[in-house]
Amino acid sequence: MTRLAPSNRLRRTWWTEAVEASGVSAWTVYNRTLLPSVFRSPAEDCAHLKRAVQVWDVACERIVQIEGPGADRLMQRLTPRDLDRVGADRCAYLPVCDSRGGMLNDPVALRPRPGVWWLSLADGDLGLWVSSLAEGGFDVRVTEPDIQTLAIQGPNAPELAGRVLGNAVRELPFFGFAWLPFDGAEVLVSRSGFSKQGGFEVRVASEAKAHALWDRLMAEGADLDVRAGCPNTIERIEGGLLSYGNDMTRDDTPAEAGLGRYVQRFDCIGGAALRDHRPRRRLMAVELEGDPPVCDREWPLLNDDGDRVGRIRSAARSEEFRCGVAIGMVAMDYGPGDRLTCMTQDGPLAATPKERFWR
Amino acid sequence: MTRLAPSNRLRRTWWTEAVEASGVSAWTVYNRTLLPSVFRSPAEDCAHLKRAVQVWDVACERIVQIEGPGADRLMQRLTPRDLDRVGADRCAYLPVCDSRGGMLNDPVALRPRPGVWWLSLADGDLGLWVSSLAEGGFDVRVTEPDIQTLAIQGPNAPELAGRVLGNAVRELPFFGFAWLPFDGAEVLVSRSGFSKQGGFEVRVASEAKAHALWDRLMAEGADLDVRAGCPNTIERIEGGLLSYGNDMTRDDTPAEAGLGRYVQRFDCIGGAALRDHRPRRRLMAVELEGDPPVCDREWPLLNDDGDRVGRIRSAARSEEFRCGVAIGMVAMDYGPGDRLTCMTQDGPLAATPKERFWR
Repeated sequence: MTRLAPSNRLRRTWWTEAVEASGVSAWTVYNRTLLPSVFRSPAEDCAHLKRAVQVWDVACERIVQIEGPGADRLMQRLTPRDLDRVGADRCAYLPVCDSRGGMLNDPVALRPRPGVWWLSLADGDLGLWVSSLAEGGFDVRVTEPDIQTLAIQGPNAPELAGRVLGNAVRELPFFGFAWLPFDGAEVLVSRSGFSKQGGFEVRVASEAKAHALWDRLMAEGADLDVRAGCPNTIERIEGGLLSYGNDMTRDDTPAEAGLGRYVQRFDCIGGAALRDHRPRRRLMAVELEGDPPVCDREWPLLNDDGDRVGRIRSAARSEEFRCGVAIGMVAMDYGPGDRLTCMTQDGPLAATPKERFWR
Repeated sequence: MTRLAPSNRLRRTWWTEAVEASGVSAWTVYNRTLLPSVFRSPAEDCAHLKRAVQVWDVACERIVQIEGPGADRLMQRLTPRDLDRVGADRCAYLPVCDSRGGMLNDPVALRPRPGVWWLSLADGDLGLWVSSLAEGGFDVRVTEPDIQTLAIQGPNAPELAGRVLGNAVRELPFFGFAWLPFDGAEVLVSRSGFSKQGGFEVRVASEAKAHALWDRLMAEGADLDVRAGCPNTIERIEGGLLSYGNDMTRDDTPAEAGLGRYVQRFDCIGGAALRDHRPRRRLMAVELEGDPPVCDREWPLLNDDGDRVGRIRSAARSEEFRCGVAIGMVAMDYGPGDRLTCMTQDGPLAATPKERFWR
């Protein structure tokens, strides 16, 4: 049993009280903010997410706002993704790299208004990187407005979001967004979220609206079996959704993280390094035999000779696929079907890289 | 009961296993690293810290290293403290500010070797700020070497450190440091630490030495009643030791945080804002009547008219001083002896600002 000691340094959100009242059983800390991690059990939460609809407090996805005449130019310095190709009504998943091409974060970016960018952050104070960079002659203002995000995820998400936010949400394409009226205000709704079950993320700018939104979703979703939920480790590994800080860090490049398709131009920080980069390893789905223990430390992947040829930093037992599911960084010399050994704290497990993730 | 879900994103340290074996009962997360927070109870841990000696895993104090010809110049851009006045064998506590004068971190800086600076960080990815800044034409290399820190704190700390690290440690002045031999290597030992009981911090560069150091301290300290411990909320509030992210954030200036004495020059980032700044509030000791609840959210301080005149973000019950002890940000119009009301989640408590902290 690992208890978390509360303090102001670990920020509560507008929904923390509702999450507590909904029976959360474990938390994690993400961007110095509380993020619920388990309600009933990872397996039960996973099964429910796949059959019904959940409401997630993901206020830990802190927003960095960049506005001013230099905003577009600064944004394109931040990422090798070509932002000219991103529609004004679309979210864009971005690798952000340091000068060596190492990944600093993988935020989702969007333009809530012309001339303004929001970066919705993975775990890491990317705002410090952006504001320091902004000091260097960009005509921009960088802030972290208190905008908090509630996700609605699961097969019943379109029905529930339609009831509460209007049927326009059903028309949103994947990664599209729109401002929609809610309770006398406007909220930004995108078709996105950290699951493969489909759904929405709703960005709210006031605590009163945040509470109203939670209450409405719970009330209108009763017949849809709505529950408070959270990003689920099993489901996101099955679907190959990467977690920054787990699967990749500053020591890994976008190509190594399987994000090479987002490296589209080189006039950004790290561009020269990215252009010359020839990855010798990449993230892959790895099937584990049996029931892996808690993956709270890095597990080496060994070949038959006992040489280290990779690592695993996310793993869980999947009831649906009846195996251990994991995300591994594997040397290019090894590929689908190869038999490797994963060294966990509880002993070795047979490990087989796979061509694709499970979903 | 608030459970913490483990993951690789929350880094284990070289001492996590030893801390677990020593009976830690609660953790916090600090710089995305596990930091023990409670062993027996906050009150028991506090009493023991004041009478014996504890060994703390504070590897969460991540080290940012700045080296190269531009290191001194970059360092002086980072802080309003005059680094010319800091001796080469001394640690220096530094406010680091953004361009508005808001505090980004309050690291301890030192020069482990000529031409090299280490910043030992409070909670926040200041490394991102520093490395982004370094891109702007400083001839430096910024890294985060894996150097981990073990603290030895309490009245028996000089005796224990003397036995394990040699009697030279006893000669170190407050905030002095030296490289000292340990187990065939050198470790950097400073007379510092996040308690008012005195002691040392030992920075280690290898996991094997880290384990050897822990084991030696535990073995040699048996008759000194050594225990695994951790920064203690009660003791640090009694002593007025500030916690970045709790007591002050980017919304507060050094002067507001009571750190005006470290604002010594203005040719740094935020210098212009700091020169023109007239603080209208400052951190103070605040005595609370009774037994405060867990301070996991901001508590407003109200005057007799019910107007908000401050806030409290750290509070605990002190057995030694037989009152609630707190650190509050209080408007300049109010001072020692004024009767205020602190609004906690469990109701109001009488609150009185004090001239000084308890220790």
